[in-house]
Amino acid sequence: MPKGFLYSGVRCGLKNKRRDLGLLWSETPSVGAGVFTQNLVRASCVDYSRSVVASGRLQGIVVNSGNANCMTGEQGEANTRRMALLAAEHLGLDSEWIAVASTGVIGQQIAMDKVEKGIREAAVHGSSDPQPFAEAIMTTDLVEKTSEIALGGGSIRGIAKGSGMIEPNMATMLAFIATDLVVDAATLDRALRAAVANSFNALTVDGDTSTNDMLLAMANGASGHQPTYPEFAHALEQVCVDLAKQVARDGEGATKLIEVWVRGSDDPKRVAKTIANSPLVKTAMFGCDPNWGRILAAAGRSGVAFEPTLASLTLAASGRRHLLCRNGTPQTFDAAEASQDLKAESVRIELDLGPGEEAVVYTCDFGYGYVRINAEYHT
Amino acid sequence: MPKGFLYSGVRCGLKNKRRDLGLLWSETPSVGAGVFTQNLVRASCVDYSRSVVASGRLQGIVVNSGNANCMTGEQGEANTRRMALLAAEHLGLDSEWIAVASTGVIGQQIAMDKVEKGIREAAVHGSSDPQPFAEAIMTTDLVEKTSEIALGGGSIRGIAKGSGMIEPNMATMLAFIATDLVVDAATLDRALRAAVANSFNALTVDGDTSTNDMLLAMANGASGHQPTYPEFAHALEQVCVDLAKQVARDGEGATKLIEVWVRGSDDPKRVAKTIANSPLVKTAMFGCDPNWGRILAAAGRSGVAFEPTLASLTLAASGRRHLLCRNGTPQTFDAAEASQDLKAESVRIELDLGPGEEAVVYTCDFGYGYVRINAEYHT
Repeated sequence: MPKGFLYSGVRCGLKNKRRDLGLLWSETPSVGAGVFTQNLVRASCVDYSRSVVASGRLQGIVVNSGNANCMTGEQGEANTRRMALLAAEHLGLDSEWIAVASTGVIGQQIAMDKVEKGIREAAVHGSSDPQPFAEAIMTTDLVEKTSEIALGGGSIRGIAKGSGMIEPNMATMLAFIATDLVVDAATLDRALRAAVANSFNALTVDGDTSTNDMLLAMANGASGHQPTYPEFAHALEQVCVDLAKQVARDGEGATKLIEVWVRGSDDPKRVAKTIANSPLVKTAMFGCDPNWGRILAAAGRSGVAFEPTLASLTLAASGRRHLLCRNGTPQTFDAAEASQDLKAESVRIELDLGPGEEAVVYTCDFGYGYVRINAEYHT
Repeated sequence: MPKGFLYSGVRCGLKNKRRDLGLLWSETPSVGAGVFTQNLVRASCVDYSRSVVASGRLQGIVVNSGNANCMTGEQGEANTRRMALLAAEHLGLDSEWIAVASTGVIGQQIAMDKVEKGIREAAVHGSSDPQPFAEAIMTTDLVEKTSEIALGGGSIRGIAKGSGMIEPNMATMLAFIATDLVVDAATLDRALRAAVANSFNALTVDGDTSTNDMLLAMANGASGHQPTYPEFAHALEQVCVDLAKQVARDGEGATKLIEVWVRGSDDPKRVAKTIANSPLVKTAMFGCDPNWGRILAAAGRSGVAFEPTLASLTLAASGRRHLLCRNGTPQTFDAAEASQDLKAESVRIELDLGPGEEAVVYTCDFGYGYVRINAEYHT
């Protein structure tokens, strides 16, 4: 896959029993781009990394999990800068080319002695295997999330973490893209922003936008292949959509991936997001209940104008389609069969409000697991 | 309490084992006012009752639980009108003075044979005891919700139901106010709208605005006492706030009432509502976890501008106050003691963003019970 990138992940002790510090860097000079959380309360690493990619040059990323280093004041800012300096020193790079990302508990100072030891160790364990890095960025994630696509003689690889506090807003939880295709910083930035709209910004687990969301991309041109812009943008979007769906499917406590498709109205994406965030819709899906009234009720409170008497709703799952409401009128359907079909690992809600644009939003169901994880994940 | 009102509640079979049809009427002519859901997808009874109170005359209310009669097309509209006609006939009133309210499953036609039998029976069982009526309007509520206040020689009584699909928007779930004070329809309307702002519109259980939210008030002047406007408005607001807090405390699966107080910023109510709806904040409260970073993270994504470095956060519970963050900087606190204190039935989150207006929002925590109720409450 993408040539010239090295990945590393070690355990430095910020969280229990798993890797918690990762490095990703290019062996040769590379360009970078990024999109970042719009949360007003954000970690210092967000502002730091934004200023790094603003230069267009990005050659390394240092990430820790277990501590978000957010709401930690000036000491937190100093620690962010120190992480970049340490990574630069041990990788033999300029610290201005290093981005920093953190994820974990908010409001606690990070143990820099552990971080320092971790960076030192990680810097000498780089390899072409992304697995240790993908593991090191996880918090309550159950599975690692990677996606690859080949294009011409080059390729694009994406690595993400998700789970909770997830409704990215012009950004995402943590996701990293590495490509050996030949693209300049401006093209990478343009394609990344376009790819985000239909992937990470069409994703929600619980509506809680994180303080540390960050999507970073690096391109080192090592393949020598220069794709056209449409080729590159399309491939990059495929990787991002694939990662976003993996994040939704592995949302905290999730038992299934839910795709919410909405057509019509002035803002189908806003309708779809409101449905995707409705606790009543999400618990109904967890209970395999074709309770379509909750879906219409959520659409109706979205703030988007539409005509309820034109609304039609279909649930698609297990290879079958159940038309539950047509032009605002309840349809006869086999509730037992629909409920059985909703046991699938992937379910699609299709709300048709009439002619117009369409949008898809990715989410997951809401079950006991979410409560367990978030009531027990103590500070 | 308020003279000249009769209450009735019977079981007609729309739901299992509990009363499900209620009547509330004044023995003498009375004026009325109401506020209604802003959900675009709404039951026909919402539009019907809005047009009834628009005349200023309201003498009776017929309510059923177990079926929302929403998204049921023209047949549903005809059934709403029929409910008013039947109630008028059996109470000996004009059907234009009767409001209709429904709550329950969306998208199913209501069994009118049961409703007809219920209205006939309820009309002959009126008494001054509000309990059967308060029970008849419940769905997943665990307790009945009533509130009374005396004023001069008269009084105000409120009866509400809540539980889930609750973030009223210029209205509420179902709540009914009866008063024997002397107020005209315009004064009642003005006072009701004012009272809603700090009570039902400052309430959220799960962020899901219902299709059937309705707050109706009736005044029959039977006490002969005419209060001043400020007296009346203040007393009415007290009743509404008391009911709103009861609804929050009995939110689906709730173990505690949470008051979110925010001071400062351009829109402290919006900040408070975002905190109150955050699944991560609500699950932390369920887990008795003083995880204040989640509270700040929710405030930061509210869309309201403030300066995080001026933010201070206090948790007040069990008679103790825990200052967790001061001017954006983490404070040392006894986490074990704070966690112990959060086991209280009532918790107050205080977020101070600097000088300015303040707002309070009422909500509850989010636990296994909400998932159980809403995953198992099958259509």
